Amino acid sequence: MLAINEDRMLADLRALAEFGRVGTGVNRPAFSDADIDARRWLMAQMLSAGLETVIDGIGNVYGRSPDVTQSILLGSHSDSVPNGGWLDGALGVIYALEIARAARGMPGAIGIDVVSFADEEGTWLPCLGSRVFSGQADESTLRDVNAKSGARLVDRLTALELRDRPLARFDPDRHRAYLEAHIEQGPRLANGGIDVGVVTAIVGLRRHIVHFRGRADHAGTTPMSMRRDAAFAMFNFAIALAEVLRAAGGPESVWNFGIVAVRPGAGNVVPAEADLTVEFRDAAADVIERMQASFHAAVRAADGRFDVAVSSVPNATLEPAAMDSGLMDDLAAAAADVGASAVRMPSGAGHDAMILAPRIPAAMMFVPSIDGRSHDISENTSEADIRRGLRVFAGAISRALARLNDAGAPQPPHSLRKKEPAA
Amino acid sequence: MLAINEDRMLADLRALAEFGRVGTGVNRPAFSDADIDARRWLMAQMLSAGLETVIDGIGNVYGRSPDVTQSILLGSHSDSVPNGGWLDGALGVIYALEIARAARGMPGAIGIDVVSFADEEGTWLPCLGSRVFSGQADESTLRDVNAKSGARLVDRLTALELRDRPLARFDPDRHRAYLEAHIEQGPRLANGGIDVGVVTAIVGLRRHIVHFRGRADHAGTTPMSMRRDAAFAMFNFAIALAEVLRAAGGPESVWNFGIVAVRPGAGNVVPAEADLTVEFRDAAADVIERMQASFHAAVRAADGRFDVAVSSVPNATLEPAAMDSGLMDDLAAAAADVGASAVRMPSGAGHDAMILAPRIPAAMMFVPSIDGRSHDISENTSEADIRRGLRVFAGAISRALARLNDAGAPQPPHSLRKKEPAA
Repeated sequence: MLAINEDRMLADLRALAEFGRVGTGVNRPAFSDADIDARRWLMAQMLSAGLETVIDGIGNVYGRSPDVTQSILLGSHSDSVPNGGWLDGALGVIYALEIARAARGMPGAIGIDVVSFADEEGTWLPCLGSRVFSGQADESTLRDVNAKSGARLVDRLTALELRDRPLARFDPDRHRAYLEAHIEQGPRLANGGIDVGVVTAIVGLRRHIVHFRGRADHAGTTPMSMRRDAAFAMFNFAIALAEVLRAAGGPESVWNFGIVAVRPGAGNVVPAEADLTVEFRDAAADVIERMQASFHAAVRAADGRFDVAVSSVPNATLEPAAMDSGLMDDLAAAAADVGASAVRMPSGAGHDAMILAPRIPAAMMFVPSIDGRSHDISENTSEADIRRGLRVFAGAISRALARLNDAGAPQPPHSLRKKEPAA
Repeated sequence: MLAINEDRMLADLRALAEFGRVGTGVNRPAFSDADIDARRWLMAQMLSAGLETVIDGIGNVYGRSPDVTQSILLGSHSDSVPNGGWLDGALGVIYALEIARAARGMPGAIGIDVVSFADEEGTWLPCLGSRVFSGQADESTLRDVNAKSGARLVDRLTALELRDRPLARFDPDRHRAYLEAHIEQGPRLANGGIDVGVVTAIVGLRRHIVHFRGRADHAGTTPMSMRRDAAFAMFNFAIALAEVLRAAGGPESVWNFGIVAVRPGAGNVVPAEADLTVEFRDAAADVIERMQASFHAAVRAADGRFDVAVSSVPNATLEPAAMDSGLMDDLAAAAADVGASAVRMPSGAGHDAMILAPRIPAAMMFVPSIDGRSHDISENTSEADIRRGLRVFAGAISRALARLNDAGAPQPPHSLRKKEPAA
């Protein structure tokens, strides 16, 4: 059993929340001064925990367990959205730090490595740090990355004296598994009174921008029958699409029409153009493909209705990422060990674990978010839930370490294993 | 019969279009340099036509027929929307100028006065010039008028050396009628192959901003059943409201949902708030009141649906303005005199005539707008339609002059007459 110290973990979590503090939340967008200061503080804690620690060329803080050739990698991210919550990402990083401290000097061939990935929140590029770590973003990708402000990523990395540092990289011979604890960022656990969530998969996503082109007319002088109202066509499309996605999706599918633009946008002018940003998510690849086909059929059916042309362009695609069943079982068993209630559930939000999952057995544990709030300074989790989450997570790591030590040599990378028949 | 000169009228119309010219249109927002230059040019033309001409303290250019104690007032406006059409307003002003020239020295007690009202288009305040002329906007109103840019009207008037000039005012003892020619700004005449429109009324308008308040949630992690999606509530409301207004309105009622705002406006955030600008118009006061009652019932019915709060605030109100039946008959007879086809129709757009109508018998004549276009540099009317319009309009003035000369002394103001039983 790992000798974790809950009070020490809480003190570290609160110390980290001082960097970029805004009321009850934090403002630590990736590569802001507050984010970098927090990363330097994290390095110091990880060094004190006996880890060989670096901040690498993309800003990942990586602490390597000495004297072992294999490890379980634990972590999350310490950047935040603008004026975000104090636990989003930070919780998983500090749990990882505490478990690494507790595991120090522990017998066995497998150690604990800790990582705080850079820019999970996508100030520059979503999951930037974990993409670079796992080899899914290379130098040429990075050259084209700009913030919304127009600033170039490579310039910012240079200014921070990061650009010339070596990169920490995923090592299939060393890294046996990746586990990430995180706040739920949704209402299920809190509403259901459940202590922890065992994540089954991180949902895939399709995002499209649907464009409606009608004609601007004087809204006083143009008879209703002669109009080509792009906004009215959009209203009808949105309502029809909701039904189409409900029919095509599964019971846990979600969709959102989050960005709406109407032009020219005057009270007395019939809308000439409208744009609707549509996204939908599901944990199952076949379900998301069915929703995608239904979406395209709905666009074709709407095109020309109300004398308005309708078309769409894809805006984002994420494939669902399944979590490792052995690690899921470790989490569920660890919850039972400490008398915590647990539920298996998909993650509707993206996380670094979805980037690692194709390379390495990965898993996530959720703790409840009060009122389901996140990405806001009002985000919070009760102290009891934060303490209990650490006990469950540490228990799962103990179980995973025991299981992997028993299994001996590392297996081939996860992505290869899935494609090969069982030996 | 008035000895009008169509070529001279066309030359003046084209000369006026040089002020603020932008391609085939003009950019003459009220009190821009181009607007003021155009007004100084107009003054010179009106002086040459023998009118006693001033530019007054609000920028109205007013030319008074000398040697008569009564007049028919003819005019429109010479300001434009930003990058608007060359005929919107200008047509009515130049028709008036040509008819005043033709009427010079004509026998009879009633002369022709000409006006180009300031800021009909509402760069500062819609129908600003005609409101001041008719006594519906006073000094205290003007002090609070600012442009969208934040500039204060009184400062601009001072800079243009207009502020200390006397105001031209409606005179119930002098002004017997107001007639305004204008482009239709809609598609009815052009689509129907009809030469002129005899305006029966200028429609009334109600405008409301409908506000939807739901809750922002993560669009990946919040189950569909737990959402309070303000945009989706708005989509449903708009479609239901269109049916409600169709049922409550008359065959010529129109409505528009021209401004749509959704916040926070992110692909992965459930919309927390939405605003919809709703306006509806009809020429009949009872119809517009019925639509108004139905609108409020629709807001009440929507409030709370989808767990979204719905409320509305009124944003603008215009009462319908009936045109004078005698002048309408003059216009219809004049059309028949020259073999022009005519239709009686409401004006869906606002005009200075609606400001004058409560004070004085008023009428409007429309010429066709190609493709119904207006408020754009593509606005145009065929030369044949412009020439024919002048013939019809001049014929109607001849008829009105004869009728009013026969009737003798002026009647009480229109607004008073309507309230008194016939003598």
